[in-house]
Amino acid sequence: MSKLEQIQTWADSQKADLVYVSDPKTIQYLTGFYSDPIERVLALLVFPDQDPFMFAPALEVEAIKDTGFKYPVYGYLDHENPWEKIGAQVNKRNANVKSIALEKTQLSVERLEALKTTFTSATFDLNISPFFEKMRLIKTPDEIEKLNIAGKWADFAFEQGFVAVKAGRSEQQVAADLEYALKQKGIMEMSFDTLVQAGAHAAEPHGATNGTKFENNELILFDLGTVWEGYISDASRTVALGKPTEKQLDIYNVCLEAQLTAQDYAKPGITAASLDKVARDVITKAGYGEYFIHRLGHGMGMSEHEYPSIMEGNDLLLEPGMCFSIEPGIYIPGVAGVRIEDCVHITETGNEPFTHTSKDLTYVG
Amino acid sequence: MSKLEQIQTWADSQKADLVYVSDPKTIQYLTGFYSDPIERVLALLVFPDQDPFMFAPALEVEAIKDTGFKYPVYGYLDHENPWEKIGAQVNKRNANVKSIALEKTQLSVERLEALKTTFTSATFDLNISPFFEKMRLIKTPDEIEKLNIAGKWADFAFEQGFVAVKAGRSEQQVAADLEYALKQKGIMEMSFDTLVQAGAHAAEPHGATNGTKFENNELILFDLGTVWEGYISDASRTVALGKPTEKQLDIYNVCLEAQLTAQDYAKPGITAASLDKVARDVITKAGYGEYFIHRLGHGMGMSEHEYPSIMEGNDLLLEPGMCFSIEPGIYIPGVAGVRIEDCVHITETGNEPFTHTSKDLTYVG
Repeated sequence: MSKLEQIQTWADSQKADLVYVSDPKTIQYLTGFYSDPIERVLALLVFPDQDPFMFAPALEVEAIKDTGFKYPVYGYLDHENPWEKIGAQVNKRNANVKSIALEKTQLSVERLEALKTTFTSATFDLNISPFFEKMRLIKTPDEIEKLNIAGKWADFAFEQGFVAVKAGRSEQQVAADLEYALKQKGIMEMSFDTLVQAGAHAAEPHGATNGTKFENNELILFDLGTVWEGYISDASRTVALGKPTEKQLDIYNVCLEAQLTAQDYAKPGITAASLDKVARDVITKAGYGEYFIHRLGHGMGMSEHEYPSIMEGNDLLLEPGMCFSIEPGIYIPGVAGVRIEDCVHITETGNEPFTHTSKDLTYVG
Repeated sequence: MSKLEQIQTWADSQKADLVYVSDPKTIQYLTGFYSDPIERVLALLVFPDQDPFMFAPALEVEAIKDTGFKYPVYGYLDHENPWEKIGAQVNKRNANVKSIALEKTQLSVERLEALKTTFTSATFDLNISPFFEKMRLIKTPDEIEKLNIAGKWADFAFEQGFVAVKAGRSEQQVAADLEYALKQKGIMEMSFDTLVQAGAHAAEPHGATNGTKFENNELILFDLGTVWEGYISDASRTVALGKPTEKQLDIYNVCLEAQLTAQDYAKPGITAASLDKVARDVITKAGYGEYFIHRLGHGMGMSEHEYPSIMEGNDLLLEPGMCFSIEPGIYIPGVAGVRIEDCVHITETGNEPFTHTSKDLTYVG
């Protein structure tokens, strides 16, 4: 059954007369077309029993048709009211729309109110977001293949980044070098801002790459990813410049043990929470529990934050095709930050990572 | 009156017991702290008559405090329920919250439902988005200064991009070169994906930079911008490689006349619609009206799509401090795409652009 037919079946089962798909990533997942319309209106409208249509800013219409979308595409100009146009097209197909399903995780309250004004006798109780999340949760072999390629480019980026590190150079210079090396190969898009953090700066788990210069005898954290045909990679490595302190080496080794223990444990049938726990136990037992202040991992695929969430309280059973990060981190203010991360996909018997850069402590510079 | 006091005054006038600020860009505008929390919860909660507080993922708390935010910041861990924690903090301050104002352009329907579950006796009718849009509409001298610096870096990027063009090189290589040149100077962030489009490819106004190689005797469109301390630049230039055809030169000259006419006309007291019209009239008179398929411009500042919108139907009167793009474009499938764009700020007597790269047709290669 095609993805579209699955939505139609869902709509039928939920008695939805219309499914209003508005998340650009969902539209990409369903149609292959991606654009961030910012404040403009882009939507895919799916009916249970007739053909869907796409509604888009006029200047996107040709690009949508070029992707091979075989149903009607209607455009609107900036000064036109998109809701009136959407209303008219829907009414042509079904003048009595009673129940409209929305992507509630993405649609803004303002857009909901515009839809309520357009479809005055409809209800908007149905939320199709969980359906799409579940649809995207299990990756197909074709998706895994794209994730593998994105992962290979992340490995290439690490290689380029590691050789660019020298004492006196800055985090920003190294990030620029590795991204430029990727672009020379035609990889134009990172899946998020490349993170290169030196020494104590790495103890800010969500700090940004800045002008901090590398000094000898410290750890350096890399967190990066690329995009390949809409699918991403995401991986972290922590490397050493010169001779780290005993304490830093200890943190590294504990984090590595946690990562390897979890990666060894990830397989079908275990819960997401138990996977978080095996890694967390290693770190807690070593006395660093209070410095591991985020979940073990997040789902990924077309974006870096999908399902499943690998965290305490999530009793979801892992299944083949699920893709997520395994990324324990230990962040001690003023001392060092260490994170080691591979994203993996669950197989029939265990898991396979998308990235293969060595996790033994690498000495650079 | 500080920005916070302005919100409090607004809340008081609207009888809002609480303002729930959730757009990361608004939070940056109000506090200086920026982070895209993706699916996590980040909010600034403002009360009419007592101190506000910030609520954030645990791993952002230190970074928020580092920016000098002088009110409480509460964090939550990934496995904790953020809504319960927010509810508890609000209840400590006001156990009888009746009316909560939201940023309806940004808040998702799902988040609204979570807030409804948390504050069961509150109403959520008030929308503070228009208030913030209006607040951000008039830029202060300090904001203009940042926009000027971002504009200078866009000029630098054009210079670097133009010299990188050679027949046989690709759009992607030139985009990579100009971004790398910026990063060498410490400018790490573009305000959007750099657009370099060669020949007929430029006739897709929202197409992306790709592997298309430059050929002699065609026009090449650049659209790019940088970020400086949270403020952006955005500018377009179309340049010639070799000798363009008569038709291409004609399109260029018409587009340039439209751009210059509008930039000459932009001043306090005229409507946004009339500004769109003076540019559109030039293009329509020359017979290319049907190929100018977007509004003349968009507001900009901290992001590339703010108010005012320079388009038909917008009777807003321009005022000093408003910042927006003037970017007529003519896109003829199979022939060429031309767009020429400066962003400007309205002054007491007219306007000043943020970018100064020559708009005479530049020959590159």
